Amino acid sequence: MPTPEVPHDENSELYQRGMAELRTQLGTMADSYIQTIKSIAPEFAWVNVTFPFAELYTRDVVDLKTRELCTVAALTVQGFSLPELKIHIRAALRCGASRQEVVEIITQMIAYAGFPAATNALMTAKGVFDDLDQKAGGDAPEAG
Amino acid sequence: MPTPEVPHDENSELYQRGMAELRTQLGTMADSYIQTIKSIAPEFAWVNVTFPFAELYTRDVVDLKTRELCTVAALTVQGFSLPELKIHIRAALRCGASRQEVVEIITQMIAYAGFPAATNALMTAKGVFDDLDQKAGGDAPEAG
Amino acid sequence: MPTPEVPHDENSELYQRGMAELRTQLGTMADSYIQTIKSIAPEFAWVNVTFPFAELYTRDVVDLKTRELCTVAALTVQGFSLPELKIHIRAALRCGASRQEVVEIITQMIAYAGFPAATNALMTAKGVFDDLDQKAGGDAPEAG
Amino acid sequence: MPTPEVPHDENSELYQRGMAELRTQLGTMADSYIQTIKSIAPEFAWVNVTFPFAELYTRDVVDLKTRELCTVAALTVQGFSLPELKIHIRAALRCGASRQEVVEIITQMIAYAGFPAATNALMTAKGVFDDLDQKAGGDAPEAG
Amino acid sequence: MPTPEVPHDENSELYQRGMAELRTQLGTMADSYIQTIKSIAPEFAWVNVTFPFAELYTRDVVDLKTRELCTVAALTVQGFSLPELKIHIRAALRCGASRQEVVEIITQMIAYAGFPAATNALMTAKGVFDDLDQKAGGDAPEAG
Amino acid sequence: MPTPEVPHDENSELYQRGMAELRTQLGTMADSYIQTIKSIAPEFAWVNVTFPFAELYTRDVVDLKTRELCTVAALTVQGFSLPELKIHIRAALRCGASRQEVVEIITQMIAYAGFPAATNALMTAKGVFDDLDQKAGGDAPEAG
Repeated sequence: MPTPEVPHDENSELYQRGMAELRTQLGTMADSYIQTIKSIAPEFAWVNVTFPFAELYTRDVVDLKTRELCTVAALTVQGFSLPELKIHIRAALRCGASRQEVVEIITQMIAYAGFPAATNALMTAKGVFDDLDQKAGGDAPEAG
Repeated sequence: MPTPEVPHDENSELYQRGMAELRTQLGTMADSYIQTIKSIAPEFAWVNVTFPFAELYTRDVVDLKTRELCTVAALTVQGFSLPELKIHIRAALRCGASRQEVVEIITQMIAYAGFPAATNALMTAKGVFDDLDQKAGGDAPEAG
Repeated sequence: MPTPEVPHDENSELYQRGMAELRTQLGTMADSYIQTIKSIAPEFAWVNVTFPFAELYTRDVVDLKTRELCTVAALTVQGFSLPELKIHIRAALRCGASRQEVVEIITQMIAYAGFPAATNALMTAKGVFDDLDQKAGGDAPEAG
Repeated sequence: MPTPEVPHDENSELYQRGMAELRTQLGTMADSYIQTIKSIAPEFAWVNVTFPFAELYTRDVVDLKTRELCTVAALTVQGFSLPELKIHIRAALRCGASRQEVVEIITQMIAYAGFPAATNALMTAKGVFDDLDQKAGGDAPEAG
Repeated sequence: MPTPEVPHDENSELYQRGMAELRTQLGTMADSYIQTIKSIAPEFAWVNVTFPFAELYTRDVVDLKTRELCTVAALTVQGFSLPELKIHIRAALRCGASRQEVVEIITQMIAYAGFPAATNALMTAKGVFDDLDQKAGGDAPEAG
Repeated sequence: MPTPEVPHDENSELYQRGMAELRTQLGTMADSYIQTIKSIAPEFAWVNVTFPFAELYTRDVVDLKTRELCTVAALTVQGFSLPELKIHIRAALRCGASRQEVVEIITQMIAYAGFPAATNALMTAKGVFDDLDQKAGGDAPEAG
């Protein structure tokens, strides 16, 4: 069985739009994140850039801050997505959510997914906040 | 083993605050909803009113519309909570979300939970919208 | 590909022990339950009888009532197993648990899986209790 | 907030390829399935056609029958996706899997997701087989 | 948006009852556990103490040992709650369950959640037992 | 309560068949894997060997490579089973699947379980491939 061609054009408007959105959310780690995935699975990387980022997040029906808080809620409830939750807590802060708002949505999720899921999410948020404080020497602009 | 007393005071400020919040979200079905639960499990009903509704939803850190969209996201991802999703889609509309925003958040969840969970949530939303249209004769104020 | 032989001996001590245990838990519906599965998947039916029922439930390390309450807890948290939860709520009552104890464990699960999962389980329990009351004319010996 | 334009071109090669693949898997119900989704959520319908069907399923790295058996495994384990499982059991049969193979994969999932998830999937398979038998008068070409 | 006041009174009977119950279950780590949560999310800490511990676990309908075994079952099935499972395995031993009973309930969960969830829970139990043996020099009173 | 006897005969044809199958899938680590489980839970070890391996995997209805790809799909979707996924990715390669096929099935699962679950599975696959490359000095026979 031959290796399938991946004729996807990374110079296309679609791909570039997705990468731009990804950089808005993830900052400087966006490119290395996709590069890691691409090194093992080019198709996976392509749909990761073009589908959620180029296709979904660029629609202006809901603002980015609300989208990211909804994603924080979703990943908190899911329970097993702590690496992705970490990325999206940072993205929420970058898109204008305060730390207090992130913590509030995680706390709200106690009601929908119970304490274990919410506690693990809260500890993940604490890790993100501690990282930001350490890098910023205590006065990070993202501090809520 | 004796039946435990449930000395919880339904006239307390806490319980009344919870019921008021519940009525804000669920409308006229709030009381019968809690009554059904209370008939089989008084303790369950008490914590249902006082914990999420009196305690969590009345905090003003995040507005109610955002909270409800986050809950729609969470229940979409959870997959098995369609009866509760139905209630919270109605609550989201009641709290100012448009139908289009509800559909957009459900669509966003494709990326975090896949098509089966998102499709079931979309069909649940369709059921709510159809119900509202039928009752309103087509010009429901909640139509987005 | 030929139909695989299923040389499993339903007269074996193992299978008979499993069926006896299944009848202890499910009562008169045990045989038809297994028969339905066997009609489409003989291997599935064999492992269903021999593995959980002959192998696990007959060990005397934990008493049957505690085992059933643990299963009620597990299926409540799982969220999507309401048909099986219904069977095991009946089994818990049959093994000596009171209705109040079943409701209490479901209520406890609010803390571990949130309100949607626990509410669906509670409504399932209500359905079982209503069925029993209807059959018994109101004075079922299993009423807690 | 204005309704976002959906400038997606349903005459594009991408969309047409996705619809063709969808029809291969779902048969005559493919078009009405997408139409229902499109009536409430055009963006959802677009990504549903273009992403899994045009993008993923048309890659020849793994044959369609194996893909469908993997999807049956995934939806069995997921537990809450029985409507989608029903669709994919039919798709698996359409792509060359026998009934016996479908039942075998569901049985295998007992080991990874337990009896409740596997039993619900088995009953879903039984429903599909019964439907097919009824339509065919007993000699459906898909019967395994 | 101003920081919401948290007017909750930690000297109240409710809070003190919750902390007492928490110390019964978690021993000396109870206070630092809540303190960590409080440092980032005071509201989360308040509901964690007052709701499951003051409100639910102090009801005498089901004894603590049975409650803890049910929680072990629930967290085993949930799959992603291993940090919380570790805490509740210790709590189960503290409340009178033997190691053998804990292992038996985890083994029973193979039937409801499959081998991966049960194996991860078993390895978590092994970690707890090894910790206890190391601290006790081999003759821990909790050894079953 | 006395320690239950475990009269299971490890010299039986059933147990030996299971161990042989386990060694086919897991290679040299099969025996130590079961030994670890047996040291804490003999009953768990017995059903682990006899039920999925002796009973299910030895049936010739579906070939081993397809079975393993289905298990990769199932564990990807499950989200919390990464240690078991690692074992089954190795088993899939051992049973004739190429790396590319494993990656393809994981990519397909984006559609059924979303990006977080699929990304975690992909990173797990990357870890397995890196391990194999390191041991092989770059020319592992399993490289796809």
